[in-house]
Amino acid sequence: MRPLSRIHLGPGPEFDLIRDLLGSESPLPPGVLVGPGDDCAVMDGGFLISSDLVIEGVHFRREWVSLEEAGFRAAVAGLSDLAAMAAEPLGILLSLAVDPAKAQELAKGLQTGAEDACAREGVAILGGDLSASPGPMVMDVVALGRSQAPVHRVGALPGDEVWVTGWLGGSGAAVHLWKEGREPPAPIRESFVRPRPRLRESRWLLDRAPIHSMLDLSDGLAGDAGHLSRASGVGLILVEGAIPIHPSIKTSLGPEHVPLHFALEGGEDYELCLTAPPGALQELRGAFREAFGLPLTQIGRVVEGEDVLLERSGGELRPLARRGFSHFQETVNG
Amino acid sequence: MRPLSRIHLGPGPEFDLIRDLLGSESPLPPGVLVGPGDDCAVMDGGFLISSDLVIEGVHFRREWVSLEEAGFRAAVAGLSDLAAMAAEPLGILLSLAVDPAKAQELAKGLQTGAEDACAREGVAILGGDLSASPGPMVMDVVALGRSQAPVHRVGALPGDEVWVTGWLGGSGAAVHLWKEGREPPAPIRESFVRPRPRLRESRWLLDRAPIHSMLDLSDGLAGDAGHLSRASGVGLILVEGAIPIHPSIKTSLGPEHVPLHFALEGGEDYELCLTAPPGALQELRGAFREAFGLPLTQIGRVVEGEDVLLERSGGELRPLARRGFSHFQETVNG
Repeated sequence: MRPLSRIHLGPGPEFDLIRDLLGSESPLPPGVLVGPGDDCAVMDGGFLISSDLVIEGVHFRREWVSLEEAGFRAAVAGLSDLAAMAAEPLGILLSLAVDPAKAQELAKGLQTGAEDACAREGVAILGGDLSASPGPMVMDVVALGRSQAPVHRVGALPGDEVWVTGWLGGSGAAVHLWKEGREPPAPIRESFVRPRPRLRESRWLLDRAPIHSMLDLSDGLAGDAGHLSRASGVGLILVEGAIPIHPSIKTSLGPEHVPLHFALEGGEDYELCLTAPPGALQELRGAFREAFGLPLTQIGRVVEGEDVLLERSGGELRPLARRGFSHFQETVNG
Repeated sequence: MRPLSRIHLGPGPEFDLIRDLLGSESPLPPGVLVGPGDDCAVMDGGFLISSDLVIEGVHFRREWVSLEEAGFRAAVAGLSDLAAMAAEPLGILLSLAVDPAKAQELAKGLQTGAEDACAREGVAILGGDLSASPGPMVMDVVALGRSQAPVHRVGALPGDEVWVTGWLGGSGAAVHLWKEGREPPAPIRESFVRPRPRLRESRWLLDRAPIHSMLDLSDGLAGDAGHLSRASGVGLILVEGAIPIHPSIKTSLGPEHVPLHFALEGGEDYELCLTAPPGALQELRGAFREAFGLPLTQIGRVVEGEDVLLERSGGELRPLARRGFSHFQETVNG
């Protein structure tokens, strides 16, 4: 594996700040192949590591989800970073900060959920930390994995097709409904509380097709397409009508909502977005659906340039406001 | 390296809860050599990983330290876990959650301090996460290192001598003075705001002596001696008069305080505590002080049994209340 050094991040205030913080392109230390900017840091020897903070009031509210569900989601956020690079998971470190007066109940609930998410992927909690919190519950999930050939955000080539796994927008729609004071219908709620890291899916795809670039959809398709575009130094054209919007969105939201909005701007679907040469994935769709019960959908193409464009039904192209959902600007309290 | 599976933790409410959470002795997944309970998890191939949460109001107060100092300490807490196992550091992942309205100032300050702590050890920040916080600032430091022969908490043998590096109690004394509304004198304050991970020291020692077991002093000598005793299945006798109490403690605290208390119960000195066969370290003391400007002090011995005892000046042995400082029970607000 060659060192990739720093990956370029897409636009958005959170990423501007990260860019600013990371500073100039300082060299990576020996033993480190990929530093800041990709889904995981990659160490010599093929070890991958990511770290995700999950904070009550920013990423979830107690009225919406159980402790177990909050812990489950946090573990999935970490494991999904490994899926994004087609790595094999080894386990997670789970660090918790909770109100010491209710520590037993709170920590146990969160940890049970995280354990469940890990067990479904055949891994376990390998360590972590426990602290008092003076305010909100805090979780940090460190995901550890292994790959001799991780797939990066860098690598998309003009001419590639852009594909996604699964259905998009469910998680964002659930948050939207909760904020309106409504309980989301079960399939929408499930998208938020029981996302799955696409670990098996990404390795299955990599075994069968030349995947050029990949990431997981944690900031919304618009934001994440921006990351991929900027990291690879290419433009993307996404076809509006092709985006696989979660089927329950149309039936559970009023006509004042544009379902596409949740797929583009809602975060935390944890599906994969990948690019591959023309024709490489087309005939795998049936086998993919059979293996995983999920659609595999071409949603666009890679072009020369640097813009992410949305192709409307009439063929008109409009620049995608590449903001994505940002936990930095919008919180679940917002 | 043989798998060590789970390490037994010493007594204390935080550790009771961790023990309870980790549940039964489930087997470690392939690729993982050391799971919960040691300073770091150890992966096949010699990669070491630890995760430390640092929370405003629990681990530090803004009135006491600058942002840079808070970031510096957080990075040291992580790197010290690598020192505890005599690993070579590779870098850290730094995840931050801060008030979005002041993100630029807060994140930059914390990160500058963490970068400084890393740069002193020849490593860098390799990645991380950035989130809004609805309340206190939160940092999570993931430390990454490498060692083909890490030193564990397991391994102390009856007959071993117990040694520590540096001076103890300074950090706890600083917190105590701040809580009393007094500004600690510079050398005491320095212990809290500029601790050093003993990375070079631990590898230097391992290169020259058969270290049987080691950890870093993050919970106070009483608590950490308990961890080592329990992990190795041995008893410890610590000699009261031998414990190297920070020299400024006696001069800066009133006669109502027992200086030994801060060495035993104060947390976050980040010195090393290690055991080695009799005579193995004695003649290295001069060279150690010359190389690092620090004392290397024998403070006790390993015995059969399971108790940690303090030997008073008259030879009387009393059980050490093996509580140690716990961020779980006492916070800096407490």
